[in-house]
Amino acid sequence: MNERVELLCQLQTMLGEEKVVADPDILEKYARDETPDIVALPEIVVRPETVADVSLTLSFCSKHALPITPRGAGTGVTAGAVPVVGGIVLSLERFNRILEIDTDNMIAIVEPGVITSEIQKAVAAYGLMYPPDPASLDICSIGGNVAENAGGPRAVKYGTTKDYILGLEFVLPDGSVMQSGGKIVKNAAGYNLIGILLGSEGTLAVITKIFLRLIPAPAVTRDILIPFDSIDQAMESVCRLLQHRIVPATIEFMEEEALQLVHRHLHHAIPFPDAGAHLLLQLDGASDDIVAQDMKLLSEQIHADPEHFYIAVTPSQRERLWEARRSIREAIRNESPLFLAEDCVVPRSRIASFVKAVKHYCMQHELRSVMFGHAGDGNVHIDILKGDREMKTWENLVPQIKRAIYHEALSCGGTITGEHGIGYLRRNYLSMALDPAQIELMRRIKRAFDPQGILNPGKVFPEQ
Amino acid sequence: MNERVELLCQLQTMLGEEKVVADPDILEKYARDETPDIVALPEIVVRPETVADVSLTLSFCSKHALPITPRGAGTGVTAGAVPVVGGIVLSLERFNRILEIDTDNMIAIVEPGVITSEIQKAVAAYGLMYPPDPASLDICSIGGNVAENAGGPRAVKYGTTKDYILGLEFVLPDGSVMQSGGKIVKNAAGYNLIGILLGSEGTLAVITKIFLRLIPAPAVTRDILIPFDSIDQAMESVCRLLQHRIVPATIEFMEEEALQLVHRHLHHAIPFPDAGAHLLLQLDGASDDIVAQDMKLLSEQIHADPEHFYIAVTPSQRERLWEARRSIREAIRNESPLFLAEDCVVPRSRIASFVKAVKHYCMQHELRSVMFGHAGDGNVHIDILKGDREMKTWENLVPQIKRAIYHEALSCGGTITGEHGIGYLRRNYLSMALDPAQIELMRRIKRAFDPQGILNPGKVFPEQ
Repeated sequence: MNERVELLCQLQTMLGEEKVVADPDILEKYARDETPDIVALPEIVVRPETVADVSLTLSFCSKHALPITPRGAGTGVTAGAVPVVGGIVLSLERFNRILEIDTDNMIAIVEPGVITSEIQKAVAAYGLMYPPDPASLDICSIGGNVAENAGGPRAVKYGTTKDYILGLEFVLPDGSVMQSGGKIVKNAAGYNLIGILLGSEGTLAVITKIFLRLIPAPAVTRDILIPFDSIDQAMESVCRLLQHRIVPATIEFMEEEALQLVHRHLHHAIPFPDAGAHLLLQLDGASDDIVAQDMKLLSEQIHADPEHFYIAVTPSQRERLWEARRSIREAIRNESPLFLAEDCVVPRSRIASFVKAVKHYCMQHELRSVMFGHAGDGNVHIDILKGDREMKTWENLVPQIKRAIYHEALSCGGTITGEHGIGYLRRNYLSMALDPAQIELMRRIKRAFDPQGILNPGKVFPEQ
Repeated sequence: MNERVELLCQLQTMLGEEKVVADPDILEKYARDETPDIVALPEIVVRPETVADVSLTLSFCSKHALPITPRGAGTGVTAGAVPVVGGIVLSLERFNRILEIDTDNMIAIVEPGVITSEIQKAVAAYGLMYPPDPASLDICSIGGNVAENAGGPRAVKYGTTKDYILGLEFVLPDGSVMQSGGKIVKNAAGYNLIGILLGSEGTLAVITKIFLRLIPAPAVTRDILIPFDSIDQAMESVCRLLQHRIVPATIEFMEEEALQLVHRHLHHAIPFPDAGAHLLLQLDGASDDIVAQDMKLLSEQIHADPEHFYIAVTPSQRERLWEARRSIREAIRNESPLFLAEDCVVPRSRIASFVKAVKHYCMQHELRSVMFGHAGDGNVHIDILKGDREMKTWENLVPQIKRAIYHEALSCGGTITGEHGIGYLRRNYLSMALDPAQIELMRRIKRAFDPQGILNPGKVFPEQ
């Protein structure tokens, strides 16, 4: 305890009292992210305001071999921002400025603490778009998006966060500040450090500035809900669409149980509640004519009755259409506050067989499952409900369920997570996806950035 | 010499005689790439046929601490494939098979030695496209494209090689074989190894299999040549187009001296030879209507006389239109076999001022310069002609010219190379672009992959 007071005083002297806190009420807020059930109190929280603050804090931690966990908005679901070994939480919440929107070069320069949807709104005012749209976009921060390489429904057409990062300023655990890339869209000078930092889950460096590539915003978007008799039919249509040069901005799917659950939850009718599966598509383009063209091509390729397409044009129609998709998690929580949320990825053509195999497993083990996700890129969200099982039974069951689902995804040629990352929650499952030599290579890369292992310890790598 | 014979025998015993050669006539072919004036004979050339061959060769080199230089098609222009410290050249030329074209998932699996345009032709048969189109696409290999993160004119709309790599199988210097990614478009399991391998110029691992993301091929393309009075006018139009939601597949530019040089060289008229600058655009889309829409929007935004647009529809018209752009290098070689070829990158909005600053420098130093390149992504090719200068004078001049050009690019917020990489040629200039701490971090990453430093030594990093 004395040691902690000592460290606190030193940090406060260095950075200013107001930026360094050890008040238990405040610490409590930094003890968790959106991952259910994983809580660990930090000893100290640092809220830096400048890159110099970040650098000083990190070199201080290096000097004293103190663990330090960087934190964005705390919306992660694999406990990546939870200080599982204690130590310091470095919250980037005050790095919350959009520094520049350069319309000539279509680049935004932002600090990592800015909320993703705020960036989208700010650039929309100039007719520009930052496409990645994770479900949490109204509450997550762009720094966290970089750390997790966040995806979202629009990934089908527009890709994920990694496709929009042109430059990063970052601080190494030893306190050195550097920048890779910048206002340039090509760069062949030295190794692609941006590449390795993307999705590194706060274990390699602390990001302090981000150069985002923007694109012209589509002038016209049209949302279409299409019911299918079965998940097979829905997925065949997805492959056919893409092969026929129709690339919607989003292709979301919901299977039968997801539809029924939401239907019960909402207390009012959703469109086509009795379907075997829904596809929710968004077409977009530079003009009405262009989108109408795509719509025509789409109708020709979808083997479903065009009478049953629900097309949203007005905002309220659009809202009605997306309501079911957006309400899934709430509907699940309503029936079972505890549930397992997985986000495996498989080749697009294997979604239907993967979903059916997981359903079969769940039926055999009397588990309720709800599946939905990004049909265009093979990313399937699988939520398994605890229901009224005893807590002890559930806790014993979870590792078995995880292994079964991961095994199925891997045997389809996929992997164990497409968006949410490994974090703390999945670290002991990483070796299902990667062989020991590859994990060892990643450990060596970790040491190249963080030789003392002080940055976000306990994450990504399996316990040894 | 005895030692070399000994190694040769051991390698031949291990791999089979036919795959290991030390015949001077054959070695000679592996002593250079497309970089003028840099030649170094390897002691032995290994031409593996299987991943096991690659693994055996690398672990043999590790055991004997032998330098080994991986080689694709040898079309690089920074001497990246030249064995500057001797040792073994590992040529991937026999890894030349397209293993699979998976139309459902729109993914191709290829070996690294396949020629890029062969992949494009093979997937075109299925209505699919592999977009990256480096100028050398008919002679370069896809493995080299990955090692250099190759770009090309279509990067404006479609990005560079890095945007299409979903998976890599690779071999570390110690011989261990691993795969990162695969037939999946999202992957959050562990570090993004693909990211750091892209553009690593053969210094981290040897790539043996590549999973390529394909996209639906546009059904319609239309090429348009537009003359401008000045480079300023041309570049203003580029910014305006992009901001108005018109994203052509390519936006190439040629400045006055490039146009005049080509005009003289071709012995027949090129369109608009007296212009101050040309823009060469390609619009593409899923249908005639969609492209016509874009064409209409484009005409509204370009501040040039639409009477003077040269629009190519037939293949022969298209050929006439691209002829000037494609003939630049040949025209330069014709006037000056020796020339300096740089490929700086600057923010798009700074192209005009960068070109003018370099022109000014060249005028002051009585140097002939020719500039052209990718206006949409700020990548400027700058060729400086030796002309009839004495060789000695030229050799003394080159480092000064390089420094002046790089300095200008960096002060515009750009960097020293956008496509060609650092290789051997630019290694002592890397420290102009990156500070010592960042280069040191890259050295640590290098050691994480290649602790003995046997893989492609003498490249990327400055001499110490």
